Amino acid sequence: MTTNKSSEEIYKKAIEVIPGGVSRNTIFRRPYPNYVAHAKGCYVTDIDGAKRIDFANNMASLIHGHAHPAIVEAVTEQLQKGTAYTMATEAEVEFAKLLSHRVKSMEKLRFVNSGTEAVMAMIKASRAFTGRPKIAKCEGAYHGTYDYAEISQTANPTNWGDINKPNSVPLAHGTPQGVLDDVIIIPFNDTERAIKILDTQAEHIAAILIDPVPHRIGMFPATNEFIEALYNWTRKNGALLIYDEVITLRVNYEGAQQAHKVKPDLTALGKIIGGGFPVGAFGGRADIMKILDPTESKLLFPHSGTFSANPITTTAGRVAMELFDKEAVQKINTITQTAIKQIKEAISVTGIAASITGAGSMFRIHLSETPPSTYRNVFQPKEISTLINELLDYLYYKENIMMINTCSCMFSTAITQKEVDRLSEAIEKGFRLIKPKLDSVKA
Amino acid sequence: MTTNKSSEEIYKKAIEVIPGGVSRNTIFRRPYPNYVAHAKGCYVTDIDGAKRIDFANNMASLIHGHAHPAIVEAVTEQLQKGTAYTMATEAEVEFAKLLSHRVKSMEKLRFVNSGTEAVMAMIKASRAFTGRPKIAKCEGAYHGTYDYAEISQTANPTNWGDINKPNSVPLAHGTPQGVLDDVIIIPFNDTERAIKILDTQAEHIAAILIDPVPHRIGMFPATNEFIEALYNWTRKNGALLIYDEVITLRVNYEGAQQAHKVKPDLTALGKIIGGGFPVGAFGGRADIMKILDPTESKLLFPHSGTFSANPITTTAGRVAMELFDKEAVQKINTITQTAIKQIKEAISVTGIAASITGAGSMFRIHLSETPPSTYRNVFQPKEISTLINELLDYLYYKENIMMINTCSCMFSTAITQKEVDRLSEAIEKGFRLIKPKLDSVKA
Repeated sequence: MTTNKSSEEIYKKAIEVIPGGVSRNTIFRRPYPNYVAHAKGCYVTDIDGAKRIDFANNMASLIHGHAHPAIVEAVTEQLQKGTAYTMATEAEVEFAKLLSHRVKSMEKLRFVNSGTEAVMAMIKASRAFTGRPKIAKCEGAYHGTYDYAEISQTANPTNWGDINKPNSVPLAHGTPQGVLDDVIIIPFNDTERAIKILDTQAEHIAAILIDPVPHRIGMFPATNEFIEALYNWTRKNGALLIYDEVITLRVNYEGAQQAHKVKPDLTALGKIIGGGFPVGAFGGRADIMKILDPTESKLLFPHSGTFSANPITTTAGRVAMELFDKEAVQKINTITQTAIKQIKEAISVTGIAASITGAGSMFRIHLSETPPSTYRNVFQPKEISTLINELLDYLYYKENIMMINTCSCMFSTAITQKEVDRLSEAIEKGFRLIKPKLDSVKA
Repeated sequence: MTTNKSSEEIYKKAIEVIPGGVSRNTIFRRPYPNYVAHAKGCYVTDIDGAKRIDFANNMASLIHGHAHPAIVEAVTEQLQKGTAYTMATEAEVEFAKLLSHRVKSMEKLRFVNSGTEAVMAMIKASRAFTGRPKIAKCEGAYHGTYDYAEISQTANPTNWGDINKPNSVPLAHGTPQGVLDDVIIIPFNDTERAIKILDTQAEHIAAILIDPVPHRIGMFPATNEFIEALYNWTRKNGALLIYDEVITLRVNYEGAQQAHKVKPDLTALGKIIGGGFPVGAFGGRADIMKILDPTESKLLFPHSGTFSANPITTTAGRVAMELFDKEAVQKINTITQTAIKQIKEAISVTGIAASITGAGSMFRIHLSETPPSTYRNVFQPKEISTLINELLDYLYYKENIMMINTCSCMFSTAITQKEVDRLSEAIEKGFRLIKPKLDSVKA
């Protein structure tokens, strides 16, 4: 579709038929979002003519940036043969093999259509395998839009309660009390408190759900101590340790779980494994995944999905992940480290009270001198989030740089030193812009 | 991907990495599923060389069959410009306008990635708007894989309980009691019983969830009396009437809701609106959908999604739905009626105890002389489902005809009189094959 309309004009039509004019709150901006004309590699051009460097990559989902020729070619070929059937395709088998060989803990897996569906299916699988109703998750962690996974995602000082027994805080109004009761909230990386909380519900917990580098908690990795303590607790108490690696698979060749000696029982994937198309996957120990096997005499977890494992997604995903081999992972992580180094220099030069957390090819900038180490200290008062938004707006409108709205970057392999230099120079200017205001907030 | 392997060989690899070897239980068949080589229009060719007429259309999702040139062309063009961004696209606005203008009750809407996500979001929206935790749904109805929507989907005589107060029967093992408690089960098209059951929970019910032509219940339409009684009950009791039209949108130009004077407050869509790509959408009254608007002072239902409203799905979907105009709807419904007429003749000629239900471009064959009118009388004892499977296997392997595993057909616009004749002739042969066994079961 080509158009001569401006973003402002399109948005006027959008608000007539879409609540708030946006299909996803993450892309909303005032006074209106910009509409994309076309994108290639790490550049996105909007219909108003602005060409921006993309450090957001559709919320971390495009590991090779936009319209990678190999993916476009493979999908164009598959398009001619159809996009979905009431039958199987070899594409899903080849892609399942690739993922299973790569993330060794995923002995068997299944595809779904989104990270939300992957986490939901993983939680349902945990309940079906253990026969238990409850899950434990970390305060502040984002795991998609399944109610149980959403609890306490945006807990704040007015409702989060005692850190020794955090409240289960609903995200959506009208969340059933039963959902709140069946989700146990633990503090991330706080081993002693977490274990004490888990002990109070030991016989009811089906699984502990962990994002090993949780973006919304502050994007710092789980400690080995925390992970091993949770793992040991689950062995002792008949529960599962389940990972949400929808975002963090990019961190290492085998995902963030590569960093830990102990491995999760189940893992959910999404984002980059779709090669730019809707995707999710979940899998893990073969003995657990048996609950999904329709050839078993008793099918404990019946599971299907109209578009799951469609050959467009599995083809695009396979090509994307083949290209994201060990060398590519190392290369993208190295250039991301360079970017972090340059931004740290900008922090030092400008003297702004800021810090950076992250892992692999992703990082997040915080307006605090010391990097946060808990959700409760990453939580931003309104004056700070206003300044973050001012910085992001400056970068977006004045410097043509697109980041994720938490002040985070998710790199693609399309990014070169040229774009990294543009990023760190622009951020330095942005720091200078907001520093006086930040100083007065902190004073 | 091209291969010289047989389906049997691929399946051997599949079972090593995928539980049961299939990503979706709906496509499983013994001894192994066949793998698709390519598909075009209403024909699917597998890698073993069989070319089948497709009356399943990926579980009702391909309204124009496979690889429709206009959809392939539009998607191929969009591919060059990228498949997903952390920004908006005009494609989503144009498509939202089309759907809202067509299904008038959907004043405002949002896109998601699957029918499952659409129904889940619609239920969460109902709770957020009313502040109430419970939903009511019909025994036996399929609404995707969100736990609440799954309850009593496969209730059977050993667990369904008294028809005056049907049990909430879990689908997956380990479903929390809280989920069972928050789902009220009513019998479809049984107005008096349904209202009595609803009355017992009046102040807790956020919404009544209805598929207006529920496939799994028996694929017969909701009566006007039933719909109007539910509508009036929701007006009186402060609840919403919400429709799952993921499958039934195809039935009429404005969906199955076109047949009723009263309109749902919210509707979920999926399947055909994706033009062959993963899709879901939900929407309805503007005052309700406001709960999703990030510009409101209080956001009651925060909602996002990485791949929601991506420009591939919204482009393919828009083209597919533009082609499925009033004339195309009438044409496909007419040819489907012809098929039903011919199959009824086959029933008559063979003297088999069978009947047909359906609406618009879909129908279902039942091995009972009178068409079923309730879920409890459509429920098949094992001897009957075995015969249904024998009929379907005969059609699939011997006649190269693919139907949905409930013995249903979901037509595409690619089907012509030639394929309808092949279908009715093959079904007549199939009826002759199973009739002696059916007679002895019924004796």
